[in-house]
Amino acid sequence: MDGAARERMLAGNDRTARRNREEFRDRHVIAVNVMGAPGAGKTAVLEATARAMRDTVKIGVLAGDLATDNDAERLRSAGVRAEPITTGAACHLDADMVRRGLAGLPWRDLNFLFLENVGNLVCPALYDLGQEFNVVVLSVTEGEDKPLKYPTIFQKSDLVLLTKTDLLPQLDLDVDLLRENLKIVMPHPAILAVSSKTGEGIDAWVHWLQGHDLHRSPACAATVTTW
Amino acid sequence: MDGAARERMLAGNDRTARRNREEFRDRHVIAVNVMGAPGAGKTAVLEATARAMRDTVKIGVLAGDLATDNDAERLRSAGVRAEPITTGAACHLDADMVRRGLAGLPWRDLNFLFLENVGNLVCPALYDLGQEFNVVVLSVTEGEDKPLKYPTIFQKSDLVLLTKTDLLPQLDLDVDLLRENLKIVMPHPAILAVSSKTGEGIDAWVHWLQGHDLHRSPACAATVTTW
Repeated sequence: MDGAARERMLAGNDRTARRNREEFRDRHVIAVNVMGAPGAGKTAVLEATARAMRDTVKIGVLAGDLATDNDAERLRSAGVRAEPITTGAACHLDADMVRRGLAGLPWRDLNFLFLENVGNLVCPALYDLGQEFNVVVLSVTEGEDKPLKYPTIFQKSDLVLLTKTDLLPQLDLDVDLLRENLKIVMPHPAILAVSSKTGEGIDAWVHWLQGHDLHRSPACAATVTTW
Repeated sequence: MDGAARERMLAGNDRTARRNREEFRDRHVIAVNVMGAPGAGKTAVLEATARAMRDTVKIGVLAGDLATDNDAERLRSAGVRAEPITTGAACHLDADMVRRGLAGLPWRDLNFLFLENVGNLVCPALYDLGQEFNVVVLSVTEGEDKPLKYPTIFQKSDLVLLTKTDLLPQLDLDVDLLRENLKIVMPHPAILAVSSKTGEGIDAWVHWLQGHDLHRSPACAATVTTW
C-alpha cells in the first residue's frame, strides 16, 4: 500500500474508533485492548480475570483470531460473555471489526469490555479500536529484549502484564533489564507480574482495572503497579 | 490495500524471490526461512545451530527485525556471519529486503543461509523470499492450538521446530494434540523437538539440514524427524 492510501485507511479507522469510544463512554463501559504475541497468555489471563471479577462486575470479550473461534469458546466455557471476531488474513483487529462484533454481544450492560487482539506484536499497535486502555501481555519466556524490538506497541501501552511468572525459576530472565527496556520505550512505564496458573498477581491486575471502573478517579491505579 | 494492488505487490515480490532462489541454487547455498512468534527462540536456535555446525559447514544469517540489530549482534557474538535487516513498520521480510541484505554478507561461499524473519505468525507466511525451506519455530509455552489459529504459516512450512523443551516438565502442554493439530494443517507434517539451552534435539535438526546440504538427496531427511 502506498503512503497516501495507508493514511486514508488509518483515518477511516480512526473515525470509527472515535465513534466506538464515544459510545463506550456514554454507556460507562471501559474498553481494554489486550495485545500480545501468539501464546503470550492473553486468553488465559482473561479467564483468570473473569474468575476474579465475576462476583463484582460484568465483563465481556470480543476475541480476535485469524481462523478459529477457539478463544471465544474457551472464554464462554469460563462463564464469560464472549464473541469471536475472525479476521481472516488480517493480522490485527480494526475499529470496524469491533463495531460488527458488538452486534453479537450485550455490551451495553458491561463494566469492562476486553478486545482480545490477534496474537501479534506489530500490526495491532497501528489500529485504534476505541479502547480506553492498551495492555500488552508479555510472557516471561519471550525475553528481556521485546520492548526494544517491538517499540511501537509498548510505547502505546498503559500497562504491561508480565505473564507465566510461575515459570521464572526455570528461566534466566533478567527482570530488571526488562524493566529498564520498558522505561526506554513506554512514556509512563507500568508493569504487573501475574500467573494465570497460580493466580499470583491477578488481584493487583483486577485492582488496576477497578481503579478505572465506572469513571472513578484513575489516580489510584498508579499505587498498585509493581514498578 | 485493495485486492488488485495487493496482487501486484505480491507478484513483484514473487519475481524478486525467484531471482533470489535461482542465485542461491546456482551457488549451492541452501536458504532457510526461519519464522516464528516473538520470543519463540529463533535466534537462540540459530546460535545453537552455529555451535553444532561450525566445524563442518559455513552458515550465515540475515536477521530481520523491526527496530534493532540485536539479533545480528547476538549471532555475530556466537561467531556467525550475520547481517541485520531493519524492517521499520513492516511485520515481515520480503524478497527485496533479502536482496539488499545480501550486499552486506559474503553469502556466495555459504552452505546454509538462514533468513530469520520478523517475530510474527501472520505476515511472513505471505512473502516468498527465495528460500528452499520454510521452518516455523514454535515454543512449548505457546500452546497446542497455534497451528489451527495461524494455519497459513504452518501449511507453508516444511518443518516445525518445537523449542524450549527443557520447560516441558513445568507445563501442561499436550504434545500429542499439538501433533494432531499440525497434521490438520501441514501437507507433510514434520516436527523436531529441541532445546537450545540443553542442546537436546539440535543434532537431529542439524541432521535434517544436512540431508539437504549441497543438493545431496533430501530423502534421508525424512528419517530424522521425530514424527
